[in-house]
Amino acid sequence: MDDLKPWLRAKQKEVDSALGRFLPRESTKPQTIHKAMRYSIFAGGKRLRPILCLAAAEACGGNTDDALAPACATELMHTYSLVHDDLPSMDDDDLRRGRPTSHKVFGEGMAVLTGDALLTEVFAIIAQTPATKRYGVKEYVEEIALTGGSRKLIGGQVLDLEGEGKKLGKKDLVKIHEAKTAALLTTSARLGAMSANATPRKLEALTTFGYNLGLAFQVIDDILDVTQTTEMLGKTAGKDEAVDKSTYPAVLGLEASRKEAARLTKKALSALSVFGSKGKRLEQIARYLLEREY
Amino acid sequence: MDDLKPWLRAKQKEVDSALGRFLPRESTKPQTIHKAMRYSIFAGGKRLRPILCLAAAEACGGNTDDALAPACATELMHTYSLVHDDLPSMDDDDLRRGRPTSHKVFGEGMAVLTGDALLTEVFAIIAQTPATKRYGVKEYVEEIALTGGSRKLIGGQVLDLEGEGKKLGKKDLVKIHEAKTAALLTTSARLGAMSANATPRKLEALTTFGYNLGLAFQVIDDILDVTQTTEMLGKTAGKDEAVDKSTYPAVLGLEASRKEAARLTKKALSALSVFGSKGKRLEQIARYLLEREY
Repeated sequence: MDDLKPWLRAKQKEVDSALGRFLPRESTKPQTIHKAMRYSIFAGGKRLRPILCLAAAEACGGNTDDALAPACATELMHTYSLVHDDLPSMDDDDLRRGRPTSHKVFGEGMAVLTGDALLTEVFAIIAQTPATKRYGVKEYVEEIALTGGSRKLIGGQVLDLEGEGKKLGKKDLVKIHEAKTAALLTTSARLGAMSANATPRKLEALTTFGYNLGLAFQVIDDILDVTQTTEMLGKTAGKDEAVDKSTYPAVLGLEASRKEAARLTKKALSALSVFGSKGKRLEQIARYLLEREY
Repeated sequence: MDDLKPWLRAKQKEVDSALGRFLPRESTKPQTIHKAMRYSIFAGGKRLRPILCLAAAEACGGNTDDALAPACATELMHTYSLVHDDLPSMDDDDLRRGRPTSHKVFGEGMAVLTGDALLTEVFAIIAQTPATKRYGVKEYVEEIALTGGSRKLIGGQVLDLEGEGKKLGKKDLVKIHEAKTAALLTTSARLGAMSANATPRKLEALTTFGYNLGLAFQVIDDILDVTQTTEMLGKTAGKDEAVDKSTYPAVLGLEASRKEAARLTKKALSALSVFGSKGKRLEQIARYLLEREY
């Protein structure tokens, strides 16, 4: 575990530098939109999705350079959804990653366009992923479009929007987080694996891994929203309760939520057996996420 | 010219039926978003972009069935941009294609998500285009992502947003319309041609055709906004003037705008010579657009 942090830092740096190359420069016209795109992308995210993508490529014996395009694409997908999710007509949040949200800085219309531009760029970038024997651009695009679309990521936002103020049960909550969080984490791992020409069996293992890790991640996020301060989170703490949003701690209680996170993490870890020692990074990441301060 | 209208009707029907197949059904969960996506797509648009795509495929000797996926993708790209453009934080319009705009029916947050979902679907659908000898999914995705992105379509919206209330010259206006209108019309034709394995020379000719046709189309649209009623347009008439938007009639005057539309149409038509008699439909469409009631 000791060598995880330097590895994470090295990979974050690689991802940031690749994002810098893939995105249009700030001086590209019209400058406002390119400034706004970079403002949200370089706001200091953890790059969890790209990291999973690179670690999955490694687990499948691939070259992580080939996984940089899908890695960046997953980060853009995530960031666009945050920019739109923070809009006044959606979650109406002023703070993200410790900084004012996009619409606070650039105005609401520009924030809509910035999200649109980041989403479009997802596909321009994923199309740069080298084809392997088993997978090509068609498969990469289908994978991320399905996950980003109305049945998964956006569908989850819809359920979230429609669920506000309602009393949801655990089943409803799981449905929202499968779609909003677990789907993109799963696809991040799968895309990395695909860029490494993974066998269908390994891809399947990563699907189980990503699904359970994604749910665990969301449970922990919900716990942190209750137990941490705004400063520690970099986004408004206690927001879920304030808007009467159903969360794991609200539905299950804090202690049961912690147990649920541990149970899901264990399930994620056991899916990694097929990778043997090559799955080490994925395992470390899963443990690391579980042990975040909470 | 007599046989254009029945051909247009037949193609519109083909496109509508393909859109119905490509899009998730209304009963797909969560139902609200799929209802909202279909509400905007089946609001009775002219399907100009898909029609250009199919006509360009025909002009290149291709099978129009192979061009249905890119044709639908261009319509989705266009519709998503309208849904977001109509938002209160953007153009703030209540009426589109003769019906209440998406946010008026489904609420603002849902309209943001609906646009996002349509945009994501653009790429899911374009990935279904059969590869030819010269072009594959990588090229199709790159083509439409560049056109839809921050340097073209979205860039045009940004210039438009930033230009409101300012006095723009003809040069600024051309820049906005190149990006906002001409780029997607050009790409529509190019994608149809690519699905028909067009030679680089023919692709180049369609680029010139689309560019000039697109600008002509926008000049005519601006004229119609002045001369037609809301009922005839299906969207709020006189809107441009009301929000003090720079338009061709405002900048050049009505008569000079008409001449400009004719001049651009002529340039578009002369680019078609390379197609010989196979360019007939494209020629008819260009003439038809110029002669719209205005």
